[in-house]
Amino acid sequence: MQTWKLTLAYDGMELCGWQAQPGVRTVQVEMEQALRRLFEGENIVVHGSGRTDSGVHALAQVASFRAERERDPEKVRLALNSMLPSDISCLKAELAPFEFHARYWATRKTYRYLMWEGDSRSPFWEGRALKLRRRVDWQAYDAALACYRGTHDFTAFQGPPSDPPRPTLRTIERADRSIMDGPHGAVHATTFEGPGFLRYQVRIMVGTALEVGQGKRDIATIPALLALAKSSSRDDAGKTAPPEGLYLVEVRHRDA
Amino acid sequence: MQTWKLTLAYDGMELCGWQAQPGVRTVQVEMEQALRRLFEGENIVVHGSGRTDSGVHALAQVASFRAERERDPEKVRLALNSMLPSDISCLKAELAPFEFHARYWATRKTYRYLMWEGDSRSPFWEGRALKLRRRVDWQAYDAALACYRGTHDFTAFQGPPSDPPRPTLRTIERADRSIMDGPHGAVHATTFEGPGFLRYQVRIMVGTALEVGQGKRDIATIPALLALAKSSSRDDAGKTAPPEGLYLVEVRHRDA
Repeated sequence: MQTWKLTLAYDGMELCGWQAQPGVRTVQVEMEQALRRLFEGENIVVHGSGRTDSGVHALAQVASFRAERERDPEKVRLALNSMLPSDISCLKAELAPFEFHARYWATRKTYRYLMWEGDSRSPFWEGRALKLRRRVDWQAYDAALACYRGTHDFTAFQGPPSDPPRPTLRTIERADRSIMDGPHGAVHATTFEGPGFLRYQVRIMVGTALEVGQGKRDIATIPALLALAKSSSRDDAGKTAPPEGLYLVEVRHRDA
Repeated sequence: MQTWKLTLAYDGMELCGWQAQPGVRTVQVEMEQALRRLFEGENIVVHGSGRTDSGVHALAQVASFRAERERDPEKVRLALNSMLPSDISCLKAELAPFEFHARYWATRKTYRYLMWEGDSRSPFWEGRALKLRRRVDWQAYDAALACYRGTHDFTAFQGPPSDPPRPTLRTIERADRSIMDGPHGAVHATTFEGPGFLRYQVRIMVGTALEVGQGKRDIATIPALLALAKSSSRDDAGKTAPPEGLYLVEVRHRDA
């Protein structure tokens, strides 16, 4: 029995997220189908470092699984890439310490949210970045991002709480914006880094900061919601930004 | 009767090029269908600045057409973007001088060819850049590019000659390579600029320079083929690089 660590990239545009669900294409289902063929019918279960939602992309998601049969890592990578559909690829396949688990060993994640300013559609950014329909005051947006940095109770910034509920005290080590040059105008990339995130947290943080940048919300509401902690309400934060702008960029794990 | 100038972007991955052909999706057919609806059944013919081949992309192709009915340019752009499929978008719609013709008035074109070095598949670059399977000596590749600059007879660097044949004496004003940072490693972008190109010329120039960079061809064969002019043969140049790496980036036109 060996434990495997895979690094995967996927274009989430036509995928219904990570987690297996009946009747739809998800990354977990596609991975498990390919791995069961590769390991001659073993009932393999793949764990992601986290569940990306429908439409969300990954530049380097990490997944783990165990298999009885022994295989050569390079052959596993090549075989996976020949079997997987074109919107999922395996960047790396490695043997890991036996106890390795992509989710429980994760120590740090980096997400990036792309927004595109343009007055037309773009065949290249469609489904891969949020198209901004209103002007954004980027200074105000950046000031809103700064409110998230540090350790806060993000109760108001999570989707439906999971069962059992996860701790809402979270540390955001990085929240900043850079500009990438795109073929049809600037792309604004907001990067978040921290030990872990709540469900929808990145998208709600982006959506709320955007409301500040678009003059629809007072910036003071953000520190106020964070200070209210458990007595804050999801309804008082901003809208969840759409999935198409979100990329899971990197996952780091503890060494052993 | 008015003459229109459109600036279009398209992801060529699932398109069979510019030119109308029976039974397949092409940019010309999609544009003419949308414009005929928009101009209430007028039999509109759209001319591109050039025919991009199947699988080739455009960041800013220019097209022209004439229509009897008068329309507001901004409404034409919005209506086109609501009618066109998601892989084609209209970046600009303008009224042009009556005699304007996207092809005959073109004075200069810029093409870019993207190549991606990575040892896996990439769901983001698949169909949008050439994946390099062998190491390239980029200094040798750049030296090969330099041979194309200037005015030469490119007989050996064209696909099947058009009928009537077009002049093979062409001027390449720019042929150089830059590196773009991609999500999965470096992307090499080769840019070509000149008053006009022969059919497949950019792809054959790239394919031949790649053979030099991959140690499969002596660089001296390039100036030799250019010097042989009309007595050179297509068979002595390199392979045509695949279409997925090619982007029509810009087309400039004379003023009036």
